[in-house]
Amino acid sequence: MIVIINGPNLNLLGRREPEVYGQHSFEDYLCGLRRLIENVEIGYFQSNHEGELVDAIQKFGFDKAVTGIVFNPGAYSHYSIALRDAVAAIPVPVVEVHISNIAAREEFRHHSVMSAVCCGTITGLGLDGYRLAIAHLLAPEL
Amino acid sequence: MIVIINGPNLNLLGRREPEVYGQHSFEDYLCGLRRLIENVEIGYFQSNHEGELVDAIQKFGFDKAVTGIVFNPGAYSHYSIALRDAVAAIPVPVVEVHISNIAAREEFRHHSVMSAVCCGTITGLGLDGYRLAIAHLLAPEL
Amino acid sequence: MIVIINGPNLNLLGRREPEVYGQHSFEDYLCGLRRLIENVEIGYFQSNHEGELVDAIQKFGFDKAVTGIVFNPGAYSHYSIALRDAVAAIPVPVVEVHISNIAAREEFRHHSVMSAVCCGTITGLGLDGYRLAIAHLLAPEL
Amino acid sequence: MIVIINGPNLNLLGRREPEVYGQHSFEDYLCGLRRLIENVEIGYFQSNHEGELVDAIQKFGFDKAVTGIVFNPGAYSHYSIALRDAVAAIPVPVVEVHISNIAAREEFRHHSVMSAVCCGTITGLGLDGYRLAIAHLLAPEL
Amino acid sequence: MIVIINGPNLNLLGRREPEVYGQHSFEDYLCGLRRLIENVEIGYFQSNHEGELVDAIQKFGFDKAVTGIVFNPGAYSHYSIALRDAVAAIPVPVVEVHISNIAAREEFRHHSVMSAVCCGTITGLGLDGYRLAIAHLLAPEL
Amino acid sequence: MIVIINGPNLNLLGRREPEVYGQHSFEDYLCGLRRLIENVEIGYFQSNHEGELVDAIQKFGFDKAVTGIVFNPGAYSHYSIALRDAVAAIPVPVVEVHISNIAAREEFRHHSVMSAVCCGTITGLGLDGYRLAIAHLLAPEL
Amino acid sequence: MIVIINGPNLNLLGRREPEVYGQHSFEDYLCGLRRLIENVEIGYFQSNHEGELVDAIQKFGFDKAVTGIVFNPGAYSHYSIALRDAVAAIPVPVVEVHISNIAAREEFRHHSVMSAVCCGTITGLGLDGYRLAIAHLLAPEL
Amino acid sequence: MIVIINGPNLNLLGRREPEVYGQHSFEDYLCGLRRLIENVEIGYFQSNHEGELVDAIQKFGFDKAVTGIVFNPGAYSHYSIALRDAVAAIPVPVVEVHISNIAAREEFRHHSVMSAVCCGTITGLGLDGYRLAIAHLLAPEL
Amino acid sequence: MIVIINGPNLNLLGRREPEVYGQHSFEDYLCGLRRLIENVEIGYFQSNHEGELVDAIQKFGFDKAVTGIVFNPGAYSHYSIALRDAVAAIPVPVVEVHISNIAAREEFRHHSVMSAVCCGTITGLGLDGYRLAIAHLLAPEL
Amino acid sequence: MIVIINGPNLNLLGRREPEVYGQHSFEDYLCGLRRLIENVEIGYFQSNHEGELVDAIQKFGFDKAVTGIVFNPGAYSHYSIALRDAVAAIPVPVVEVHISNIAAREEFRHHSVMSAVCCGTITGLGLDGYRLAIAHLLAPEL
Amino acid sequence: MIVIINGPNLNLLGRREPEVYGQHSFEDYLCGLRRLIENVEIGYFQSNHEGELVDAIQKFGFDKAVTGIVFNPGAYSHYSIALRDAVAAIPVPVVEVHISNIAAREEFRHHSVMSAVCCGTITGLGLDGYRLAIAHLLAPEL
Amino acid sequence: MIVIINGPNLNLLGRREPEVYGQHSFEDYLCGLRRLIENVEIGYFQSNHEGELVDAIQKFGFDKAVTGIVFNPGAYSHYSIALRDAVAAIPVPVVEVHISNIAAREEFRHHSVMSAVCCGTITGLGLDGYRLAIAHLLAPEL
Repeated sequence: MIVIINGPNLNLLGRREPEVYGQHSFEDYLCGLRRLIENVEIGYFQSNHEGELVDAIQKFGFDKAVTGIVFNPGAYSHYSIALRDAVAAIPVPVVEVHISNIAAREEFRHHSVMSAVCCGTITGLGLDGYRLAIAHLLAPEL
Repeated sequence: MIVIINGPNLNLLGRREPEVYGQHSFEDYLCGLRRLIENVEIGYFQSNHEGELVDAIQKFGFDKAVTGIVFNPGAYSHYSIALRDAVAAIPVPVVEVHISNIAAREEFRHHSVMSAVCCGTITGLGLDGYRLAIAHLLAPEL
Repeated sequence: MIVIINGPNLNLLGRREPEVYGQHSFEDYLCGLRRLIENVEIGYFQSNHEGELVDAIQKFGFDKAVTGIVFNPGAYSHYSIALRDAVAAIPVPVVEVHISNIAAREEFRHHSVMSAVCCGTITGLGLDGYRLAIAHLLAPEL
Repeated sequence: MIVIINGPNLNLLGRREPEVYGQHSFEDYLCGLRRLIENVEIGYFQSNHEGELVDAIQKFGFDKAVTGIVFNPGAYSHYSIALRDAVAAIPVPVVEVHISNIAAREEFRHHSVMSAVCCGTITGLGLDGYRLAIAHLLAPEL
Repeated sequence: MIVIINGPNLNLLGRREPEVYGQHSFEDYLCGLRRLIENVEIGYFQSNHEGELVDAIQKFGFDKAVTGIVFNPGAYSHYSIALRDAVAAIPVPVVEVHISNIAAREEFRHHSVMSAVCCGTITGLGLDGYRLAIAHLLAPEL
Repeated sequence: MIVIINGPNLNLLGRREPEVYGQHSFEDYLCGLRRLIENVEIGYFQSNHEGELVDAIQKFGFDKAVTGIVFNPGAYSHYSIALRDAVAAIPVPVVEVHISNIAAREEFRHHSVMSAVCCGTITGLGLDGYRLAIAHLLAPEL
Repeated sequence: MIVIINGPNLNLLGRREPEVYGQHSFEDYLCGLRRLIENVEIGYFQSNHEGELVDAIQKFGFDKAVTGIVFNPGAYSHYSIALRDAVAAIPVPVVEVHISNIAAREEFRHHSVMSAVCCGTITGLGLDGYRLAIAHLLAPEL
Repeated sequence: MIVIINGPNLNLLGRREPEVYGQHSFEDYLCGLRRLIENVEIGYFQSNHEGELVDAIQKFGFDKAVTGIVFNPGAYSHYSIALRDAVAAIPVPVVEVHISNIAAREEFRHHSVMSAVCCGTITGLGLDGYRLAIAHLLAPEL
Repeated sequence: MIVIINGPNLNLLGRREPEVYGQHSFEDYLCGLRRLIENVEIGYFQSNHEGELVDAIQKFGFDKAVTGIVFNPGAYSHYSIALRDAVAAIPVPVVEVHISNIAAREEFRHHSVMSAVCCGTITGLGLDGYRLAIAHLLAPEL
Repeated sequence: MIVIINGPNLNLLGRREPEVYGQHSFEDYLCGLRRLIENVEIGYFQSNHEGELVDAIQKFGFDKAVTGIVFNPGAYSHYSIALRDAVAAIPVPVVEVHISNIAAREEFRHHSVMSAVCCGTITGLGLDGYRLAIAHLLAPEL
Repeated sequence: MIVIINGPNLNLLGRREPEVYGQHSFEDYLCGLRRLIENVEIGYFQSNHEGELVDAIQKFGFDKAVTGIVFNPGAYSHYSIALRDAVAAIPVPVVEVHISNIAAREEFRHHSVMSAVCCGTITGLGLDGYRLAIAHLLAPEL
Repeated sequence: MIVIINGPNLNLLGRREPEVYGQHSFEDYLCGLRRLIENVEIGYFQSNHEGELVDAIQKFGFDKAVTGIVFNPGAYSHYSIALRDAVAAIPVPVVEVHISNIAAREEFRHHSVMSAVCCGTITGLGLDGYRLAIAHLLAPEL
């Protein structure tokens, strides 16, 4: 099982700044993704609450049934050391995904405190970043 | 046609800091990659010279036969504005790849001047980053 | 309908540092305010939880019955990019209010990450800032 | 009596960057304002000269007939410690007003050296900021 | 009554980075501590949620039955001004404790926004820091 | 044997800024401390000279009869890398103590170059910090 | 008509630091320049007063008879946002000139707040910079 | 002849922040000073205008009858490079005086851009600084 | 003989970001320039290679037939100390030219390491900067 | 009694960098000074040792026979918080003196950690600074 | 075999800034050096091209016949992470040499990105630095 | 005569961090060195006291019998401006030596305030740095 965890305001996808984040809701995209990757279960969790995200990272991160976590921490990327510590504490591998190219946006979005404790990071490739992250978690040595 | 362009010292892959970059040469990896993605031609260029990389980006970047460029600028990522300008000047989409998780290494490797002018960036997923970048360039809207 | 949203520790008004924030609870003030502005409904929400505030901004911010939001993010002003993103994502206009003159307090209170995505900001005018913000939202072109 | 003091280039209102500052001259606005607040005299002074503004702040600031000053220091907000010292030296309360949302403009406009010595600051609410500042000065405890 | 409040990820003690935080869960340690200090009630609260911690600080901080709070804010130490404001707002004395020597870890862990509003801080002495903090709160003038 | 080493100006205790450091001399406090902890010898050394403190740290730090050092480096905390190197060089454990809450004082007192090479640090708990440091050195695993 | 506007201390040319600014007064140079460019009127204004310079920029900048302004803001280059705003507000093109090579002098002279709102800047070419600026304003597309 | 030049807000002496600047006007002090130093003429000039101060420095600074200038630039000390350039341009020696101890006030008052081009600086000795500056100018080699 | 040396990506002129750099190739412009300045030979060299540019600067810079060099270092302006050292080492005068107004672009383009060792710099005046630089080199004292 | 305390390397006066510090030894100057101020005893102490200077400040600073201290901390000005604390701890007034104009020398000499806790500071007036400091200490209200 | 590798502009030795680098060409010096150290072959390579230097470091750095490399990276010392990576990648020991004392020159020359990956660095001892570096490489444990 | 002066904690060589500084005491090394360089007297002085080191630098630095000083300032390298001033004041040439490669250690060890006033610096070559420094002082022009 792969788990996608989305942070704050990602529930607004399709409604919020469509020129940056596109016009489809994440649920739409998830349907397509599950059809594409049929043989693997894809869990999904979203919250605007930093604490709930810490709880979720802890829960899935120690769950033996979970192969990997795809984590888009949204705005918490830039300051939540609590989330960073949670990611650093768990044995399940985590790939960080950002839909937009954060290096091309405001200065304060250039740095993610999460990146150093994830396996790796995919930014700027739109929703396709989720597909690539899963592809990697399922076959990291390909 | 997809073109992979590798920057300085990536010719040493397999010989240099194997605990960071793995033990296989890039040529070995490229063979496997070409077998995996049979129906698309994958070009390859490596140089330690900033100027030759600028020339290459210009050449492939205006070439109508090229669908996309996968670019690992190596150490030049952190200071070559000349390469950044070259990437910004061309119409072909470029995905930046770093083998290691640069956010988890020395401070001066955290920032890439290239990222803001590429479509997106993949870091820390090892050589698999190249496969994912190509997967994206071939089907960005999947 | 105008909605006032108050952030962390503002439930302590009247109990916390009275020399900075005055001696009356916010509820007392709200009663007077509602009497003063009789013809408009004034909603009120307070929370110490960043996530609940994001939820509230999203809920009221897409609510067609809401003319404007008066938002005092309290301490979250200085670091909550999650709240900033929520404010930036909604169509309802938001006026930021600070009771105290944050420019005259500790260095770390001088900068608000919220201000750039609000219509404007009123600081240092005490609880009266709420009245002025509502006056503006009801007649911005006066 | 309330006195409005405007700093450099505000005499160009209506002519300068209308997308930022609107299309009406300040004199037009002042007419409307005086009609709206009939029972209070509203004085007005504008200068492009830092020294003349210091002189004016000193003159009105020690004048017993003056209830309050509404001060838009324009560009001097960001570096004139001489004006800051003048404001700090006088007993009459001063409310700082900025027409545009300075937090959403260039970095060097984010900080006002004036704010810490004024009662408070209103930014980003357009010319309406002047009305609100006067409303506060006339009834600060409402 | 003394209350111990633990912040995010401290529920993982014994499971997370045992070379930094030791191999015992906090509950084990708490049992020993309660046996050692028999004549004083020791309350305990842990949460990964910043807002719940603010609520807890407010609740215990105005509770007359509480002699002192021992607070390990975990990762929130480094950025939660909301928690800082809560600590500053309450009359009950608070001693900050960090299990590890934060000065010997990553740069971003060197500074705690909480310290300036606590009575004092104990870092790097392992779980023993909790015992010492309680010893101080029970007899500060010894 | 436990050794307390005090740095510059701590010989003035009781005479210097009593609102910060209290009204008793360190010798008075030491008498009480020795009475309280009867079964352990408590050595004491004070100097205003950086070099003499380096010498003392070296002498006691390689002395097999010494169980631990309680070190208040005073102002040298903030810049004496020579003292830091001495502490780092010795096998005897050192606990750093500051009487006042240095995080709540001038900016330049917030950082101690000593902390990273001590076991841990106790700040802001007044002279009681010495008692707690000794309690820890005598029973670190309690 | 071209107007040259000179800022503070440029009236001292020939008297002040001749090794930096040369030994001739600006008036001498202006005579020669007017002889060289006979068919165009060259206006001239100098002041040590920031406010008078703002006034002048406004006056000439909205004057339809003026083809272009050559502006040497002197020391105000480095901090006068009031002058910058004036330049940004006018439709007449402005070329900034510095007689000395400001990049080779003190650190605080390296940055000019004016440059970003001028057409361009000429530095270090001595008084000849004025001639070149005029040559450009008269035939920018040559 | 010695000339004292005072910058902005020093005309308020005795009225402004008396706990910092004392309760006497500068004119009172000047009377006493002239009585004390009978055999030397002491000129005096004060202005709130940066440009007028530049003019005055230029005028007195090239006047052969002037032995020295005692200059208190007030708030302009901290940013007026125009005044600095004027001081640097003249042959008459200038001693900078500050009534208050600027090193013990707000951070932005710690640095004076004027100091490096004056002979020397006297700060924090109250109005007596003027007497000392004159004493030095009259007998620098004593 | 005057030599124009162009740095990286300037061979793309007319193809790269035409809204910044215009629509004509440099060769087109050069033709016009040579027609305009008939009596002087204008040499031209372009390279994307830092090392080749260093070689060229050395070669032309010690060539007695060369009256001056017009150097547009492109992106190397911002970091090539190797080029700076080459320019500093040669006796032939060098004028730095930038086509665009670098002060009005990204922060990292505001500073040129080259400027301090050139005679002077012309920025923002488009291709006309080359004409002006040559005009100056041919008659610097005009 | 007035005491002059000189810090490190001031024993070399006359031998060290005579273009900065003059050609006379401090003892020579002191003779002249004692002759000039006959009716007051002038004590003198010099040391290269930070600790000895702390001891001296403590000794003279609590000595009722001492009217004031003239302190030239030399290089310790820039980093000795131990000396700063000693000065802050004593009741005797201290005037800081620097022979050279430290604002016109290397960057690291611009800031003195001592200044904020002295009455005031005299810099750049050569050895005459000592005379002026004594003149002030003997008659601060003149 | 020992190899000396010299970076950009070192081919100008004797021609460039002789007051900094001396008046002899490197070839002259090399002759003398080879005579002095007769029994060891001393290879030599110089280039102005960063890429050629990377190639050379790689070639000699994996050559079993090479005992050590003496590397003067010239201006590349300060920014070439590509060269740093090359040095870090090879097994042959490298000693960095700078002819001038870079700590006594411009600020931007104070830091070398190369030093951390070399065995050690010799600066400021003129051409003699090469002899010492070779002496060390031939007998590091002497 | 050559004099070696060692700073703080270098008396611990062989006992302190042997993985950084090796396992031999300095005295052992010195014996070997004196045997190697028989014809020159090698003096030796070590102290942990900054003041004693200043005294020693002054004493040997003006001693005509001393050909050169080899100075390892240890931790004082990073902050002792007093030592820097002493080195700058003496006519005898000083070579700075660091046993370890300080550029490869903690950030605060990267900068030495001493280097700019020494002839040159040798770092990272172990104890062999002393031999090389002496070799240079005895024959600087070889």
